[in-house]
Amino acid sequence: MKNVLCAKCVRCGREYPATPDTTVCECGGILDICYDYEYIRSHVSREYYARCDEIGMWRYRAFLPVEESTPAPPLRVGASPLYEAPRLASQLSISRLWIKDDGLNPTASLKDRASSLAVAKAMEAGADTIACSSTGNAASSLAGNAAAAGMRTFIFVPSRAPIGKVAQLRIFGATVISVEGSYEDAFRLSAEAIDRYGWYNRNAAINPYLMEGKKTVSFEIAEQLGWNVPDYVAVSVGDGCTIAGVWKGFQDLHAAGLIDRLPRLLSVQAAGCYPINRAARSGAPWEPMPEDTIADSIAVGVPRNPDKAIRAIQNSHGLTIEVTDDEILDAMRLLGRTCGVFGEPAGVTALAGLVKASQNALLPDNASVAVIVTGNGLKDTANGIRAAGEPIHLPPDMTLLEEALKDVM
Amino acid sequence: MKNVLCAKCVRCGREYPATPDTTVCECGGILDICYDYEYIRSHVSREYYARCDEIGMWRYRAFLPVEESTPAPPLRVGASPLYEAPRLASQLSISRLWIKDDGLNPTASLKDRASSLAVAKAMEAGADTIACSSTGNAASSLAGNAAAAGMRTFIFVPSRAPIGKVAQLRIFGATVISVEGSYEDAFRLSAEAIDRYGWYNRNAAINPYLMEGKKTVSFEIAEQLGWNVPDYVAVSVGDGCTIAGVWKGFQDLHAAGLIDRLPRLLSVQAAGCYPINRAARSGAPWEPMPEDTIADSIAVGVPRNPDKAIRAIQNSHGLTIEVTDDEILDAMRLLGRTCGVFGEPAGVTALAGLVKASQNALLPDNASVAVIVTGNGLKDTANGIRAAGEPIHLPPDMTLLEEALKDVM
Repeated sequence: MKNVLCAKCVRCGREYPATPDTTVCECGGILDICYDYEYIRSHVSREYYARCDEIGMWRYRAFLPVEESTPAPPLRVGASPLYEAPRLASQLSISRLWIKDDGLNPTASLKDRASSLAVAKAMEAGADTIACSSTGNAASSLAGNAAAAGMRTFIFVPSRAPIGKVAQLRIFGATVISVEGSYEDAFRLSAEAIDRYGWYNRNAAINPYLMEGKKTVSFEIAEQLGWNVPDYVAVSVGDGCTIAGVWKGFQDLHAAGLIDRLPRLLSVQAAGCYPINRAARSGAPWEPMPEDTIADSIAVGVPRNPDKAIRAIQNSHGLTIEVTDDEILDAMRLLGRTCGVFGEPAGVTALAGLVKASQNALLPDNASVAVIVTGNGLKDTANGIRAAGEPIHLPPDMTLLEEALKDVM
Repeated sequence: MKNVLCAKCVRCGREYPATPDTTVCECGGILDICYDYEYIRSHVSREYYARCDEIGMWRYRAFLPVEESTPAPPLRVGASPLYEAPRLASQLSISRLWIKDDGLNPTASLKDRASSLAVAKAMEAGADTIACSSTGNAASSLAGNAAAAGMRTFIFVPSRAPIGKVAQLRIFGATVISVEGSYEDAFRLSAEAIDRYGWYNRNAAINPYLMEGKKTVSFEIAEQLGWNVPDYVAVSVGDGCTIAGVWKGFQDLHAAGLIDRLPRLLSVQAAGCYPINRAARSGAPWEPMPEDTIADSIAVGVPRNPDKAIRAIQNSHGLTIEVTDDEILDAMRLLGRTCGVFGEPAGVTALAGLVKASQNALLPDNASVAVIVTGNGLKDTANGIRAAGEPIHLPPDMTLLEEALKDVM
């Protein structure tokens, strides 16, 4: 990999060669992939991207830690739309607002960006089987991306994972182990099984490459804005990998000279589970918390990638905000009704945080904000109905219809 | 509209000016929008599209029946991926096979193509409220596209519509009337209510513009194949609008000189409901049938757009095939496991038909086929689980896991 220098521990600074099966540092710290930005600068530019006709995250291959000969996996990941939302912006007293609908990825979540990279690295490692534990989206996305590439998957989910995500896994042919207990229980059992059976490990906390896939969402936001950067980027936070990836993406572009400033991060967690926000605010080491929220994808009481996330929030001079389940349900309705975008609870948590920030006047006047919707609401329709209510049930009778519509006309 | 000549009755041939609120002919026949292909030829070409950087269905505006000043509605419809599926092709003894994943549209079905056009025409008509009846996808897609454009929607669904689609509707802020009875009952009540309240009518059988949106899926397939055309295009058929739109799309491209031949259609219906296939095969007028299939989106016993569909199948020298619910469930698994694409039952019915055609050696040697997946499986996760089975449930215990995996390792 001519664009990669090494994998460096974020805790002790020790450097390792970046091999396909590189995991954590000997000290237990997470590794960060370091790039040769001079090399990248010599290969890409704004002009390069104006001419590039590759669609999706692999158009940013110059920034990805893969061999030049490694093919892009089959599913078309990324290229999700960025919508400007002027009516919602004015409702929130924000100067400009954009919604990045990453629920339109192939398996309906941002996690496809990480899984596409995982499949590429598994191919480099010569593996034919990949495993992971996940609250749901990483799992279904790995299963889909691996199936398209002809690889086998073993997936560990906590038993609370919503049916939409489990249905995806099974359809994609994964062997699914639904573990009674918390995310932490599922994670531990997966780690033990990966050791035992020698599968390729797609756990984002262990595998330093996955975050490098997630960062492509920032590349797209910047390019879709003509290489301009919003003042704030709002992100739902669970395990910490996504917000760390978002930050890495903007840092990469800045280092490569494609953008000329960095955004501030708006880190939004559920009020029932916010260990990363708590640590980022206090400066004290993070502590585990219970997992008490409907936003299952970010209900992570023992985050597996807290170091990079906390550092990203602090380095960006970011804001940390917690939102209740009711505020999350409100945000689902708000996003659907103003933008025609249906996000899952964790997917709209970032928007719920922005609403709260706006209500509490935490943002400066004339702030511009990009909100990342990380997952599709179709994965969790029960909470969709909970947020928006049941339809009007009627026999086919015009008189009854007129009666029922009296209040809404 | 400089590119449009008129709206012409498919039954009696009478011509009407194409106004935004044009519906059916006085004789009851459905209208077809007729174009000035000389005008279109003078505006687009393969070179034009090689340079065009608009993403999504509105890049084909030259072929769409809208005023030049009408803005494209906000949601980014179309631009869905076309995957080549070599492993599946060889499994089916087909020379080349492509999967068009239209479940990756903004509201997760091909119907977004029609709804985007409906919203544009409603804007031209000065309407602020749109209504329709639908088995689900047309409804949720109208609700989403209208919400993004700031319009209000009234939606009539049969009470059997799956929860995923109803959840979408409610999230998008639609007033939803769930009608006890069949699709026909929902359709009739919606027609009466549209008369009574004066809403803009998005019923695809009445509104001749919607099919013109759907045809963009064919434009994309052809352009994604470098303006080559597969021998067959396989389509799931319910109301008849989609297959008629698919055919119109290829005819348009042919008339405009962008492609040099036409494909044959593979019209696939459920064995429990196939009035269009029956009529296309026999040449006799179509007759109503019961609606007995899990593929809710194509369970249409009284098709509202049979004329164009039957004509399309016959004119293309197409094949008609019916598949059982079990064959549909098999196709869901097959598509997921080989391609990483999760289709809803109606969404994979076309593939189920192709499997059957292959098993019965109905296709010539060396045939190339494009299969359109019309809707996302996340809309109907219950059938996803039914197709693919439950996960392995376990407490977090390695010994129990080893025991459970004994058979699959």
